[in-house]
Amino acid sequence: MLAATVKDGALMVEERPDPEPGSGEVLVRVRGAGINGADILQRAGGYPAPPGSPPDIPGLELAGEVVARGPGAERFQEGDRVMAVVGGGSQAELATVHERTAMPVPEGLDWPQAGGLPEVFTTAHDAIFSQAGLRPGERLLVHGAAGGVGTAAVQLGRAAGADVVATVRNDGLRGDVERLGARAIAPEGFEDEGPFDVVLELVGAPNMPGNLKALATGGRIAVIGVGGGMKAELNLLALMGKRARIHGSTLRARPLEEKAIAARLVEREVLPLFRSGALTVPMAATFPLAEAEQAYKRFTDGGKLGKIVLLP
Amino acid sequence: MLAATVKDGALMVEERPDPEPGSGEVLVRVRGAGINGADILQRAGGYPAPPGSPPDIPGLELAGEVVARGPGAERFQEGDRVMAVVGGGSQAELATVHERTAMPVPEGLDWPQAGGLPEVFTTAHDAIFSQAGLRPGERLLVHGAAGGVGTAAVQLGRAAGADVVATVRNDGLRGDVERLGARAIAPEGFEDEGPFDVVLELVGAPNMPGNLKALATGGRIAVIGVGGGMKAELNLLALMGKRARIHGSTLRARPLEEKAIAARLVEREVLPLFRSGALTVPMAATFPLAEAEQAYKRFTDGGKLGKIVLLP
Repeated sequence: MLAATVKDGALMVEERPDPEPGSGEVLVRVRGAGINGADILQRAGGYPAPPGSPPDIPGLELAGEVVARGPGAERFQEGDRVMAVVGGGSQAELATVHERTAMPVPEGLDWPQAGGLPEVFTTAHDAIFSQAGLRPGERLLVHGAAGGVGTAAVQLGRAAGADVVATVRNDGLRGDVERLGARAIAPEGFEDEGPFDVVLELVGAPNMPGNLKALATGGRIAVIGVGGGMKAELNLLALMGKRARIHGSTLRARPLEEKAIAARLVEREVLPLFRSGALTVPMAATFPLAEAEQAYKRFTDGGKLGKIVLLP
Repeated sequence: MLAATVKDGALMVEERPDPEPGSGEVLVRVRGAGINGADILQRAGGYPAPPGSPPDIPGLELAGEVVARGPGAERFQEGDRVMAVVGGGSQAELATVHERTAMPVPEGLDWPQAGGLPEVFTTAHDAIFSQAGLRPGERLLVHGAAGGVGTAAVQLGRAAGADVVATVRNDGLRGDVERLGARAIAPEGFEDEGPFDVVLELVGAPNMPGNLKALATGGRIAVIGVGGGMKAELNLLALMGKRARIHGSTLRARPLEEKAIAARLVEREVLPLFRSGALTVPMAATFPLAEAEQAYKRFTDGGKLGKIVLLP
């Protein structure tokens, strides 16, 4: 099979042996594989794939057809359209997925959208509901809302009956974010827009003092991105006074059982909203696998709204 | 009635009008009222009583006999032995308590112990179970374990089947803490004793980098004391990598319904352990109400294990 590969910072598309599905796994012919920030970090050498994932083939999400099943794999049939978050290796013509982490692709969702859905919607759903416990009627602040996880979070918050405010640095993208259901504002001065019950932090340390200031009593901050800096100042007395909590997390390193639980929750609470049309996967661009280098460049150039998806 | 009063940093014992029980409240003849760190802060002007509590009579906990009931109060009868966390005003001969926040005093518990139980055991139970979700077999680290909340947390953790490590600055008190069920260590180098699933932080900012370093994957830090400093450094990437969370809280400012829930949990999960003898309230000293000044001095002098309780 052809696969995107990374070695010493170089991204190439090369021939690799076809993977074989292990116990409980399905082999998927990949039709869409989104690019995420973690791929950029991995290419730069800073975020190695977890054990059990191909160390040199990037890609954390995929959609495609089941073409073979390993021993004991029973959830899907050959030909089924599936999508999943994976530990790595999705940016290739073939990839293996444990059937418990795979989800059916909702009817009507095309391959590019399905290939760009799992990582960002699972990450956003896990952070704002499973961790931060967002409730109907609460106020949600999403930082860095024009990105993949941000656009997912804005839509999920809106669909759950929350009042969503979103910071977007690029003023040319604020209108797009507003159309997803948030009030979009510049990052400067966001701390005066509170109180917020839940803050989804996709930017990092510079926002943290303002997040705490803008937090409601009993508020929750979920930190899942630190591109803007990782060393934050935390006023513990303010945290106590707000009776607040701060979560940090990543999906990638979790054990199979936790990834499977996250996938079940997305199946139950998120996928029906794609079928009804309440949610969409905003698409910035698609590229054939052979143009992975250009796709990565488009991703890091910024100034886009939505996903960049490779189509092997 | 006689009451301890604070004004402009001065602590006195003065005559005050008897309080009257409002709707749903009971009037309690106070037989024991523990001193807590919050009383010291309040005397210094830094921690005013919440609305609805006497602004100038300190005291966050009490035990005593019900002597009258307000309209609609039905849980207790005159003569019943009760104890409670209150928003203030317990260091007096009489105090009012909402019946939903009051708890029955376990048989066999004397007034000094009952008067020193509610605040520290409710605070510790809320932090390590309701917030941090301590589970049997997990490893619990208690910082500042020789204090009132610390000694409660050590015992509660041990009784719940956790492996408890406790930092105690005063090396003369480590043996006492060990007898409560923890391995007691000096604070220096605690970060090498991990991984810990739950950290109860009673000291504050200086411990936070070490707490995060020593935290297990999925670990929780509950911050309920910052006497050692409030401005902490927080590495968000480390928080994400550990998939950890940090809670801050105080009991005092919570609304009635949350205080009542905390009291029900203590009734159900903690008080039976006093009846069985698995838990005790370590007592440092008792003082008559008239000697409140000496009692406060004894509290702030430190070097003690357990509670200082006023006996009005």
